[in-house]
Amino acid sequence: MQTQPRWLLIATLFFLTAALARADEGMWLFSDPPRDLLKTKYDFDPSPEWLEHLQRSSVRFNNGGSGSFVSADGLVMTNHHVGSGALQKLSTAGRDYLATGFLAKTPDEELRCHDLELNVLVSIEDVTDRIEAAVKPDHSPQQAYEARRAAMNTIEQQSLEKTGLRSDVVTLYHGGLYHLYRYQRYTDVRLVFAPEVDIAFFGGDPDNFEYPRYCLDICFFRVYENDKPAKIEHYLRWSPGGVDDGELVFVSGHPGRTNRLKTVAHLKFLRDRILPAQLDEVRRREILLEIYGGRSREAERQAQQELFGYRNRRKALLGALAGLQDPEIMKRKTAEEEAIRRALAGRPELEAKYADAWQKVAGAIDQWAEIEEEYHLLEAAAAFNSQLFHTARHIVRLAEESEKPNAERLREYRQSNLASLRQQLFSAAPIYPELEITRLADSLGMYAEMAGIESPMVRKVLSGKSPQARAEELIGGTRLANPAQRKTLVEGGPAAVRASADPMIDLVRLVDPPARALRKQFDENVEEPLNQAYGKIARARFALGGKDVYPDATFTLRLALGVVRGLEQAGQAVPPWTTIGGAYLHAAEHGDTAPFKLPRSWTEHKDDLALNTPLNFVSTNDIIGGNSGSPVVNRDGELVGIIFDGNRYSLVWGFVYDDEQGRAVAVDSRAITEALNKVYSAINVVEELGVRR
Amino acid sequence: MQTQPRWLLIATLFFLTAALARADEGMWLFSDPPRDLLKTKYDFDPSPEWLEHLQRSSVRFNNGGSGSFVSADGLVMTNHHVGSGALQKLSTAGRDYLATGFLAKTPDEELRCHDLELNVLVSIEDVTDRIEAAVKPDHSPQQAYEARRAAMNTIEQQSLEKTGLRSDVVTLYHGGLYHLYRYQRYTDVRLVFAPEVDIAFFGGDPDNFEYPRYCLDICFFRVYENDKPAKIEHYLRWSPGGVDDGELVFVSGHPGRTNRLKTVAHLKFLRDRILPAQLDEVRRREILLEIYGGRSREAERQAQQELFGYRNRRKALLGALAGLQDPEIMKRKTAEEEAIRRALAGRPELEAKYADAWQKVAGAIDQWAEIEEEYHLLEAAAAFNSQLFHTARHIVRLAEESEKPNAERLREYRQSNLASLRQQLFSAAPIYPELEITRLADSLGMYAEMAGIESPMVRKVLSGKSPQARAEELIGGTRLANPAQRKTLVEGGPAAVRASADPMIDLVRLVDPPARALRKQFDENVEEPLNQAYGKIARARFALGGKDVYPDATFTLRLALGVVRGLEQAGQAVPPWTTIGGAYLHAAEHGDTAPFKLPRSWTEHKDDLALNTPLNFVSTNDIIGGNSGSPVVNRDGELVGIIFDGNRYSLVWGFVYDDEQGRAVAVDSRAITEALNKVYSAINVVEELGVRR
Repeated sequence: MQTQPRWLLIATLFFLTAALARADEGMWLFSDPPRDLLKTKYDFDPSPEWLEHLQRSSVRFNNGGSGSFVSADGLVMTNHHVGSGALQKLSTAGRDYLATGFLAKTPDEELRCHDLELNVLVSIEDVTDRIEAAVKPDHSPQQAYEARRAAMNTIEQQSLEKTGLRSDVVTLYHGGLYHLYRYQRYTDVRLVFAPEVDIAFFGGDPDNFEYPRYCLDICFFRVYENDKPAKIEHYLRWSPGGVDDGELVFVSGHPGRTNRLKTVAHLKFLRDRILPAQLDEVRRREILLEIYGGRSREAERQAQQELFGYRNRRKALLGALAGLQDPEIMKRKTAEEEAIRRALAGRPELEAKYADAWQKVAGAIDQWAEIEEEYHLLEAAAAFNSQLFHTARHIVRLAEESEKPNAERLREYRQSNLASLRQQLFSAAPIYPELEITRLADSLGMYAEMAGIESPMVRKVLSGKSPQARAEELIGGTRLANPAQRKTLVEGGPAAVRASADPMIDLVRLVDPPARALRKQFDENVEEPLNQAYGKIARARFALGGKDVYPDATFTLRLALGVVRGLEQAGQAVPPWTTIGGAYLHAAEHGDTAPFKLPRSWTEHKDDLALNTPLNFVSTNDIIGGNSGSPVVNRDGELVGIIFDGNRYSLVWGFVYDDEQGRAVAVDSRAITEALNKVYSAINVVEELGVRR
Repeated sequence: MQTQPRWLLIATLFFLTAALARADEGMWLFSDPPRDLLKTKYDFDPSPEWLEHLQRSSVRFNNGGSGSFVSADGLVMTNHHVGSGALQKLSTAGRDYLATGFLAKTPDEELRCHDLELNVLVSIEDVTDRIEAAVKPDHSPQQAYEARRAAMNTIEQQSLEKTGLRSDVVTLYHGGLYHLYRYQRYTDVRLVFAPEVDIAFFGGDPDNFEYPRYCLDICFFRVYENDKPAKIEHYLRWSPGGVDDGELVFVSGHPGRTNRLKTVAHLKFLRDRILPAQLDEVRRREILLEIYGGRSREAERQAQQELFGYRNRRKALLGALAGLQDPEIMKRKTAEEEAIRRALAGRPELEAKYADAWQKVAGAIDQWAEIEEEYHLLEAAAAFNSQLFHTARHIVRLAEESEKPNAERLREYRQSNLASLRQQLFSAAPIYPELEITRLADSLGMYAEMAGIESPMVRKVLSGKSPQARAEELIGGTRLANPAQRKTLVEGGPAAVRASADPMIDLVRLVDPPARALRKQFDENVEEPLNQAYGKIARARFALGGKDVYPDATFTLRLALGVVRGLEQAGQAVPPWTTIGGAYLHAAEHGDTAPFKLPRSWTEHKDDLALNTPLNFVSTNDIIGGNSGSPVVNRDGELVGIIFDGNRYSLVWGFVYDDEQGRAVAVDSRAITEALNKVYSAINVVEELGVRR
């Protein structure tokens, strides 16, 4: 018999002392901050007021990003690439705010966004016991899933009724804890300032996820209440002096998703199935939009923001997949898993309760594998890559679900979510029929390729036509591009929807029975067993090592600590900062051609700028997609920067944090001040920030 | 029992009268031109001399294109995008001939290409009987395949020994006829003139496969013999007057591959498996090269020509797949197949001999489907997307095959092919290690995704490393980038290769046993049964309708007839010609930005040019990829243009020809003259062409 290898012993010790050994790792809950780590390593003990102020100053952009309040009058700062969706929707054929940037000199010049929703976290309440009490030991997977959903829908609805606040039950540790998050909702959001995309995303795709960087990736919005700028109690003060090398800084934002606590079997499924399929689809859509954009400058304008999204995602996915294909990383994940399972084996009472969880995860993954492709095509609607299809489906399902009691509805149609859903559905953001046809035709073609063009469902969907002809027929025939038509149907209720002969509604009715069946299978045979199994693993972790394991990211507010620190790259020391002057050099090195062409405002004002002003910096804070726009603050809670990217070495952080070379990338607050003052003469903005020069 | 539907009857009649009904369809053999059609429809009866002159004036570019002799001193004209591979290989970091163009003012300024081989068809001999006699009725598939290959290898070798000419047995009708083609080989090919890529490929990817077009897609080479310009008897005279609307024109060139005679089952396999997989791979590589090119301008230069190739292929494949996914086209193919099978059913003696062929094709396709993915990864080497891997494999296999009798060798190592193979192997064209690493790492990653990273073969290939690390190790370690090293190994023979410890050679040795086994399975279980079955179908066609069915394209010389004719597109009449002046307007409409930016030479010489000179034109000639660079000649055999593209409606021509909207696109000879005279002052070239103004 082989003796226990030494690395396993080390891995076990590593796991049990992880919180201390982990350096600056962690996306911590505001309700459970890493006090010991902060005290021990940084001699910092944040007060409840310090934490509450930072929490309440932090803003979630519901389209997938983060931001912060920076004035008492509701001014919000985020990344340009977080605001770019709203900028795109405000733009038209003759008016491209992404290209030109925007500045409202007075409040009445501010532009109201079509459908942006901002959330501010007000309170956190542990509702694990209520959720777990609803699920009985003798429940079938179906009963368990339905009981869990009913409990969540009901808790949220009761909270909404009681407080008037947006109320979301958040599943932490993939099923280990359930917290009720209450948010202040802001739906009247107006654009105040955006620079040109050429400086916001200077260096384009080649520089994305790289460092050194030279981007002014910021924009400003203002939240309104009752048609007046909202009065905000908690907002971040601008640091007067900026930040020093090695200084402790905090990032408060909304990391979207990490997979650090997932089992090795689960990671292998991501590596072998999910990520390759996602990459194929992202590449396909990237090229589709490149082709579309090649038709004309207007077509290019229409597709630009979505194209950026695919390119960004493609780089993130490539980095993630490369990480999972790196045997060193998989070895580390395997060692971590072996360590906890070994530790469990030494505690028979825990082993009896929890040791079967890994097998249960693997079993749920097997179920997932069976339906994954069809689920992705029909329920995730990859076969119908059209905004109007999604709109039609919401209309059809909303009508159906509204006839059920709240506790029994699909999660997205629960009573407490309807205000947000209606805002999306009735958005007057422009829809471009040619772009819709292009996307839908390609995705119908993909459906035919993947499911078989002669399969019964594909035949019905295509209805005897080619994917192109069918897409033209659907987009040409539907009236759902008109928001008034959507409103009529939604407000007409189930009867109106049933009576509709809109071809896109017809298509949804055709596809929905199998799509809903797949959803049900997924919910009951994959999600519920995963929740139960990961709940066990989480409880095992808690029992073995206490609660100082932070949960995986869930697009809810987290606190990450770190220090400003350069890195070594290709044998060279890369300092933590770049400067404004460096941007001009970087442009010149690339022949001043796109995507390395600075906007005219920057070339014209070069002489006005202090070229040694810090522009971007790197730090060790633990971030991931969704953190874009997160404020970076110092010990005094002052704003010193804004996160906008991670470097290439951070692309594996979805699975493992490592700060040897991995870094978060931020815009330095000093560059923002300098540019607003000198390049954009945004006097009103800098005065509001208190940084006019 | 149902009566025979009317469309089937019509389809039968259609098939039997196809040659007449087909209008200008056809890629005809020079040994079997469509005399009746020409006589009946165009009152034209080409003399043997006319045909021989055109045949001998036509040039095949062995990298995949066509061209023609245009002077007695070996001057050859082809497309810029056919010559661009040679241009790329002649370019270096400081000297980018694709960007700048090139003009040799005197013969000693002409640049010798690294590895270009040009072929001129000298004679055609029917060897069907010899091939078929080798295959006995009682042969197993393995015996049949080996007997057929032995016969082909031997015929070629005997012909080479007898004539000194390159000798290739060409399989026509996918197995219906076998012809021996003898070629004059030219391997000393020198660059004479190329315009800038910005005018050669004006409009870039957006305009590719579209019309109207505005491209000067030409370049000139010269063939040498014994270090002197070759003396050429047959070359095309430049037409003094150009061509008229509706005029009969001929295209003589080398269409690469069509699938018009393939069975419906075969087409469905292409539609459902092959084309989608090819597209996924092409998209993947397109994006990979875009990312690589984003690193620096030099990286962009290194990748540009290969990137063009993928983009071109992606558009062609998208059009082809859309065609196969169009129910109308599939209905037409099905009707054609039903018609011939029904006609056979009416002739019992033919039915007994041939009717099982369709089933046999389907059976071979089933065998193909089983091994296709692994064959593609290992034998087609998609898992090893590296020039140096392919070089290493040729070295290893050449050593092994050279120890066998000629008749038993893999086709590419038959004695008669070795001169061409050695020219490729010893090419001094530059190899870029970083580009090699990028390609190889990505393809190893793809291999891991497709075959499973934990499969035994993938584990061996990756050798415990990530795809990136393994690619760096292989490209960093191999010495095969040095042509002298390749030569040493090849000339050292099997012993030298066996003794080599080069890591890329090692990798080939690891992969070759399964790769060769897959090759053997494919050759014996797919290719041989398909040859036999398609041979039957061809003989059935001949028996039913005579030989006026032309064979599918095989990258051998074909004659296509047609007329200059505009088309209707999006409800608008598109005239057959564009003009030089139109190019300037087209640039202006797109803001004079890439890919719609004319080169400086064109903006500087605008006033010198006759802006109403015809630039590009469309005609109904039946062409496909491989025809690029084909001369367009009039009844007098004079050169009036050069094919460089098909329009978007021609993208289905791989399966069905249709001239309602489908068109071939050519550069007008008048624009070539005008540009050489006025923009490039290429006095020596125009004097040699006899068109100096």
